[in-house]
Amino acid sequence: MKKIEHLGIAVKDLKVSGPLFEKLLNTEAYKTEEVESEGVKTMFFKTGESKIELLEATKADSPIAKFIEKKGEGIHHIAFDVENIEAETERLKNEGFIVLNEIPKKGADNKKVVFLHPKSTNGVLVELCEEIK
Amino acid sequence: MKKIEHLGIAVKDLKVSGPLFEKLLNTEAYKTEEVESEGVKTMFFKTGESKIELLEATKADSPIAKFIEKKGEGIHHIAFDVENIEAETERLKNEGFIVLNEIPKKGADNKKVVFLHPKSTNGVLVELCEEIK
Repeated sequence: MKKIEHLGIAVKDLKVSGPLFEKLLNTEAYKTEEVESEGVKTMFFKTGESKIELLEATKADSPIAKFIEKKGEGIHHIAFDVENIEAETERLKNEGFIVLNEIPKKGADNKKVVFLHPKSTNGVLVELCEEIK
Repeated sequence: MKKIEHLGIAVKDLKVSGPLFEKLLNTEAYKTEEVESEGVKTMFFKTGESKIELLEATKADSPIAKFIEKKGEGIHHIAFDVENIEAETERLKNEGFIVLNEIPKKGADNKKVVFLHPKSTNGVLVELCEEIK
């Protein structure tokens, strides 16, 4: 784990939350991107070497819609930057963590991503991500 | 907001969660500290320029005990490093954010801290912190 790559925050409406986070972070969003396979629209802000990723559901059955229904808006996951996602996934599996997708999938922001089940990580949804070169 | 200073994670038992996060982050905790005024014991890990702070309640009525009772273990707050906490608190107040303590209080890890109410920040408990020189 090299650093916190980003923190994912579930929001109901990017049109409301985008401007709110611009004020909070005192910086403009540098990118918006839709990830169709995950049913989300995302908006990114830079803060130091990390990013804040706002996530709005685009479908009623997307994981973000379900999260908001259950828990309300708020922090959804933490993503760590890793050097070699296959090796790190293997290491964590061997340490007893529950890997949700053993084969990395394509995430937002040009990344290969793997998720760990919150049940194995103290209730925290953990994402590993490696930039696609 | 200069960077993510740390991410606070509420845990039931540091003796269980400490070793778990050592495995997850593949690094040892560099500090444990009790903040009596907040009713918490904390444990810190480095990840890049940021930290992960585990928080265990030391009293039944501490904010962390209440959080776990209501939501279970998981991400509790995000803390941003700021240059001048008084000026940043003033700026955010003027932007409409609800400040929980206008006068900075002493937090863990040698910091002055101010909290923003999650109601004004999309359900995210936000902490501002400035290192005490």
